[in-house]
Amino acid sequence: MTSADLGLLSAGRAGSAAEAATGDAAILQALLDSEAALARAWAAVLPAVPSGVARVVTEAARADRFDLASLVLRAREGGNPVIPLVADLRAAAGEEAAPYVHLGATSQDVMDTALMLVARRALAPVLADLARTAAALAALAAEHRATPMPGRTLTQHAVPTTFGLKAAGWRALALDALDRLGTVRAALPAQLGGAAGTLAAFHAHALRLSPSSPPAPDVGITLAGAFAREVGLAEPELPWHVLRTPVADLAGALAFTAGALGKLAADVLVLSRTEIGEVSEGTGGGSSAMPHKSNPVRATWVAAAARQAPPLAAVLYGSLAAEDERPSGAWHAEWQPLRELLRVVGGAARDAADLAEGLRVHPERMRADLDATGGLIVSERVAAVMGREAAESKDLRQVADPGLLDPTDYLGAAPALVDRALRRTAMETP
Amino acid sequence: MTSADLGLLSAGRAGSAAEAATGDAAILQALLDSEAALARAWAAVLPAVPSGVARVVTEAARADRFDLASLVLRAREGGNPVIPLVADLRAAAGEEAAPYVHLGATSQDVMDTALMLVARRALAPVLADLARTAAALAALAAEHRATPMPGRTLTQHAVPTTFGLKAAGWRALALDALDRLGTVRAALPAQLGGAAGTLAAFHAHALRLSPSSPPAPDVGITLAGAFAREVGLAEPELPWHVLRTPVADLAGALAFTAGALGKLAADVLVLSRTEIGEVSEGTGGGSSAMPHKSNPVRATWVAAAARQAPPLAAVLYGSLAAEDERPSGAWHAEWQPLRELLRVVGGAARDAADLAEGLRVHPERMRADLDATGGLIVSERVAAVMGREAAESKDLRQVADPGLLDPTDYLGAAPALVDRALRRTAMETP
Amino acid sequence: MTSADLGLLSAGRAGSAAEAATGDAAILQALLDSEAALARAWAAVLPAVPSGVARVVTEAARADRFDLASLVLRAREGGNPVIPLVADLRAAAGEEAAPYVHLGATSQDVMDTALMLVARRALAPVLADLARTAAALAALAAEHRATPMPGRTLTQHAVPTTFGLKAAGWRALALDALDRLGTVRAALPAQLGGAAGTLAAFHAHALRLSPSSPPAPDVGITLAGAFAREVGLAEPELPWHVLRTPVADLAGALAFTAGALGKLAADVLVLSRTEIGEVSEGTGGGSSAMPHKSNPVRATWVAAAARQAPPLAAVLYGSLAAEDERPSGAWHAEWQPLRELLRVVGGAARDAADLAEGLRVHPERMRADLDATGGLIVSERVAAVMGREAAESKDLRQVADPGLLDPTDYLGAAPALVDRALRRTAMETP
Amino acid sequence: MTSADLGLLSAGRAGSAAEAATGDAAILQALLDSEAALARAWAAVLPAVPSGVARVVTEAARADRFDLASLVLRAREGGNPVIPLVADLRAAAGEEAAPYVHLGATSQDVMDTALMLVARRALAPVLADLARTAAALAALAAEHRATPMPGRTLTQHAVPTTFGLKAAGWRALALDALDRLGTVRAALPAQLGGAAGTLAAFHAHALRLSPSSPPAPDVGITLAGAFAREVGLAEPELPWHVLRTPVADLAGALAFTAGALGKLAADVLVLSRTEIGEVSEGTGGGSSAMPHKSNPVRATWVAAAARQAPPLAAVLYGSLAAEDERPSGAWHAEWQPLRELLRVVGGAARDAADLAEGLRVHPERMRADLDATGGLIVSERVAAVMGREAAESKDLRQVADPGLLDPTDYLGAAPALVDRALRRTAMETP
Repeated sequence: MTSADLGLLSAGRAGSAAEAATGDAAILQALLDSEAALARAWAAVLPAVPSGVARVVTEAARADRFDLASLVLRAREGGNPVIPLVADLRAAAGEEAAPYVHLGATSQDVMDTALMLVARRALAPVLADLARTAAALAALAAEHRATPMPGRTLTQHAVPTTFGLKAAGWRALALDALDRLGTVRAALPAQLGGAAGTLAAFHAHALRLSPSSPPAPDVGITLAGAFAREVGLAEPELPWHVLRTPVADLAGALAFTAGALGKLAADVLVLSRTEIGEVSEGTGGGSSAMPHKSNPVRATWVAAAARQAPPLAAVLYGSLAAEDERPSGAWHAEWQPLRELLRVVGGAARDAADLAEGLRVHPERMRADLDATGGLIVSERVAAVMGREAAESKDLRQVADPGLLDPTDYLGAAPALVDRALRRTAMETP
Repeated sequence: MTSADLGLLSAGRAGSAAEAATGDAAILQALLDSEAALARAWAAVLPAVPSGVARVVTEAARADRFDLASLVLRAREGGNPVIPLVADLRAAAGEEAAPYVHLGATSQDVMDTALMLVARRALAPVLADLARTAAALAALAAEHRATPMPGRTLTQHAVPTTFGLKAAGWRALALDALDRLGTVRAALPAQLGGAAGTLAAFHAHALRLSPSSPPAPDVGITLAGAFAREVGLAEPELPWHVLRTPVADLAGALAFTAGALGKLAADVLVLSRTEIGEVSEGTGGGSSAMPHKSNPVRATWVAAAARQAPPLAAVLYGSLAAEDERPSGAWHAEWQPLRELLRVVGGAARDAADLAEGLRVHPERMRADLDATGGLIVSERVAAVMGREAAESKDLRQVADPGLLDPTDYLGAAPALVDRALRRTAMETP
Repeated sequence: MTSADLGLLSAGRAGSAAEAATGDAAILQALLDSEAALARAWAAVLPAVPSGVARVVTEAARADRFDLASLVLRAREGGNPVIPLVADLRAAAGEEAAPYVHLGATSQDVMDTALMLVARRALAPVLADLARTAAALAALAAEHRATPMPGRTLTQHAVPTTFGLKAAGWRALALDALDRLGTVRAALPAQLGGAAGTLAAFHAHALRLSPSSPPAPDVGITLAGAFAREVGLAEPELPWHVLRTPVADLAGALAFTAGALGKLAADVLVLSRTEIGEVSEGTGGGSSAMPHKSNPVRATWVAAAARQAPPLAAVLYGSLAAEDERPSGAWHAEWQPLRELLRVVGGAARDAADLAEGLRVHPERMRADLDATGGLIVSERVAAVMGREAAESKDLRQVADPGLLDPTDYLGAAPALVDRALRRTAMETP
Repeated sequence: MTSADLGLLSAGRAGSAAEAATGDAAILQALLDSEAALARAWAAVLPAVPSGVARVVTEAARADRFDLASLVLRAREGGNPVIPLVADLRAAAGEEAAPYVHLGATSQDVMDTALMLVARRALAPVLADLARTAAALAALAAEHRATPMPGRTLTQHAVPTTFGLKAAGWRALALDALDRLGTVRAALPAQLGGAAGTLAAFHAHALRLSPSSPPAPDVGITLAGAFAREVGLAEPELPWHVLRTPVADLAGALAFTAGALGKLAADVLVLSRTEIGEVSEGTGGGSSAMPHKSNPVRATWVAAAARQAPPLAAVLYGSLAAEDERPSGAWHAEWQPLRELLRVVGGAARDAADLAEGLRVHPERMRADLDATGGLIVSERVAAVMGREAAESKDLRQVADPGLLDPTDYLGAAPALVDRALRRTAMETP
């Protein structure tokens, strides 16, 4: 389709597993998976549902058999893609199974469940990439736990630090992201509430299908539990059509991840500067104009992601304030930003992992840069030992004991902090 | 491509002209149009450029001959899609013309120019839809200039107003959007600066190609002017690689438009409520669960757009603070949000126009609702004429002259305001 | 000071405990508390520190003795308020204690610690208000577990629900907010890293002060632990000058809370509409123009808060990508948005609690509204039992069994869902 | 008041004229100015209004006579500060004048007018600071039109540029900001619509006050015009209670200004780095820990402002979608973000002007940095003249004509571009 977005304007994510998991084809499959799971849940809960129906619906629910472009156009009229999809799935399932497709459900049940499925699937490679990033950074931190380099504050040399402490900090953020995303992912719930979240239609249909053994009034609750199991998501306490905690939690964890990786990128971009050159990307990007250039491309993609994520998350937080049993706008405004957020973070996670694994460290440039201020970088130490007046001297070498001026001997607890930080491991999540 | 976004999660824009104008195919064509315009500009400025080159490049620059998916993947490595595109275009142009492709330019020259072209093209249908909206609303305002209805503040009946005044207000916002978008669109500039915005390479190439008649030192400026004319965009005063006024202006005008249409949508959504029913959409959306429902789908899509646009604009405003002669992140972060913003607004403009043209107005429901408070809706008038104490009486009918209690006779200057507002026309923009 | 913000433009928070806890006076006190805690930590860790110093500094550290306006003006020059504050505190502490004030610390140690203290203090009343909200909503949910009312989707009547289910949903969100904020609050860390996060100066000073019994190289780590205990915050694994997880976590939990309460507000605003009138605020706000009006003021303040919070959180998420050991801008950009976010949420939490406690429910209006569509509100049920064609009939009363048309008998599992939801209690947090 | 915000967390704006113009005292005065202007407008339009009333109200309308803290607390109950203020102003005006205070107006008339007045006043120093910035940058651009320095893209040396071109670009953005803010400021409108924007109450009161010579039905329109003149703001075509173009236009122009100045700051921060040192702030900030440091404090404040402004603007754009004749939330959510945005930009404008006027430029460091890559910075030129293969040689000095390798002789049209840019002057605005 000529209007398709294949990633030309966001190539940082191009070809990533997270991108594939969030394309329209994947979303369509997740919608179909949700419908199939509902059919199976019915069969599991109500003996009156003919035995083969669930199997037939599940087999029919293959995205490649549906006309995606047509669904998109028809989605506009009804307000969401589930309405035309149900029609097509009924046709595909055949006359006998058709009446059991989408039985008792509302469009939002299927949309919400599908987007949670999509998030769950897209986050798997993201978590793997974060783990890869953390591992690579742990190795760098260990190797360089005592490699001295300038610590910089407000763009100026402050006091020495070690590259290992920097890498340990990057890793801590990657682990924080892993913990937050992993926790959120494990809790992503299925959605089944029916038209207004009361599960009423499920009972009505069960009563019709099984008049001889009338269902319990809370058969809908039983069905919702079976549905969650079939679709492989958590069972929520309440239908959450307008209780958007899962989406907001995703928003927060994804914005966090983009920012956490953005810290790594921001540092790599500074340290890669021509005048600094203390690190370089394993494989730099080229230039269409300048033959000599090797650009920190991965860090650039990650930095771009970190700028895009928070406003996307803000849309999702904004949608918490959703009126009624289904809002007109707040819910619809979630879909594309959630997808984009997953993609932006998916690309950043892959790029960050590649960046961390390939990063080249140049201790000799660090060492040289420590001397750039002629000893001023340890003026804090001179001040501590000899008093602030001595440290404000124009030429520290004239007033200070040379032993005080060695920047490689003023690393404080940096190596010890690295050791402590490396003892942390990622949280276990289901 | 399985990762493609065809609009399944943003069907409000599905099939719109603005969507088509912002798809990857359209962006690819704009990139190629920019390259072709550059070749023609060279030919126009420098006699030494062989006569047929510009024609050959222009003919080769057809998007359908290029492998979009491959470009996307290769764009990741270099940091933008222009680098692989230039290679492919050179191959397509053939050995003689190849050296003149992208001559002296930097990737950003081509990206920026292409995105301005895309914006210019995508805004044409948006402006047309806004004009359509304004025309439909003008007709509604004129027809209902004195149709009384409840004015509502903080959700409560306040005093009567007229539906015409409401419609005139919606129209004023549509015209404000037209003016702002039209002004911005007319000023969208081409970009040509070379590697760091000094135009140096253009001079160097001109010197090489034309050693016998050396070019003026500012041949780059001449070329940039010719380029702007060839590509059909404004000529900027300075290369704007890191002077992002055009992008920020687009951001503001687009966020404004989404919000302006969002006001119309917000009102339609209130007035469509089951309990109010003062307006209804010409064609409502259905429901997968409830046969009786007719949802205000167009207003819903517009409302969803109004929620998504401001944060996208915030990303673009944030990118103004771009370091160096090309930033690592701020520029890259613009691309996708700009596209999404154009799409979100493009869809909203179409839906708003359809909504305005099809809106059904129910004066009898308005009239009935005016009576819902038993005359309290004119308590302000009673207070004005008889004093606040009288107006605070529990039963106004016992204290007030019945003439004061007729809500249809307390419309103030509403009809006159409508007349004045309808005298305004949209600004002329080139 | 004539430039002071006393809350005239954000009166929703006026007079709240959270507002008082986030005013400049409270922040100044927290800065001083941090400095005093550092002095005490030194005394606890290093015997060479004279015994009375910590007491003297602690006594001097009283905000009402400092000139706040002067500090603000001087803060501009140095880039933060700690620099002038340390000078003033040294003067206040007297000659003997002065050298031990701020010993080895950097401004950011004190700023970060103080803001975490402020957050910790400001969140106490917020958590209490959330608990109050949850309790009031639990009572409403229990009382109205089976009170029928129209369920509304996309502004239209859908199927019946119960007011209890609505209230149980609001409560679930309040508990979600409690859990998230409580967890974040319990983990808020102290900050102590010194100039570049290596703790080097602490060792240097300890060595100077205690030359006879040289401190261990990681004395800084010991000191940081003592500092956290003295100041009453968690001890972090690493100095987090540029590992901004605590701030981002606060941002997410606060934006969540604003949105969660915004859902309650959004519903109250709809249900309070003149034409609906199913609930009303206990004490409505007046009008400067209309004597009869009783506005849903508390819901309005909460709704306004829900609009302001996500973008403030976006600033904080954006500051994660902080370059170097202290960034020039990202850190400074956090302060005011964090304060505003605490205030916005603090006001909303109080208003939501007042709103929930005072909410008046009008079951008779709910019952009347259920009839507004002449039975169409149960068309889903008719469709389930009799088929979709029957349900699409113009007059359901002609085709359907009257028993099917009673909206009060189609509540599904709503009461059972309420019961289940009410079994949940808030998480325990330290 | 202990909860007051005096600027401790946003000291960048401390003591600025824009800050003073946006404090609660200034807002209170603007509210009172609006009430006084309304009284004068009545007197000008309706002979029946006693002659001295307007004078008495105007004299009573002095902020220092009102109890701001009490107003804030009472504002919470009614939903805005105008309700209690009108009561206090009536008391202050005395028995005769009291009935003419706020006559026919609604709270929003006064709030909106006052905030436009505040914006108008706060923008005067902002425009002056932008003009000061532009003038200082023009001088730098002229002086350094041909001062060579490295052009940098994606953090790497690209090709040479001149410092003058950089400064000319910064100036162009300052002029763009001047133009946009100046245009918006000149159009800021007064607000007068009455309860629901129909001006009905003005007619009702006029009728009561002047029964013998009944006013024209559109007396409200006449009054609104007189009010705009009295208060010194533009006269709008329609009451804009829910047509928020003026606020959105302010949002856009302010976000633009913050970003435009943020570009200057971003560059200064890079060029001030210890390893680069090509510019430095006239007066750097100190450090609480490191005696030698001179931080780029002004650039830091500006950079922090550029991060805060876009999300604040997003709130304001989001408030365009305001339901009814006065929304419950969208309007209230504007007030504090608008104030904060004015303050953030006001501080940034002052800091940018100070920064530009005091900036120290170090051409010798620029010259030295041009050599950092051993000639690679002109590899583009070598490629242009000798072919890409030559330019990709490891040692350009072995293959290239030394004349090609002089970075100071490859400035392209930079000086000419500076000259052209300096011919631009700021737009004239009323």
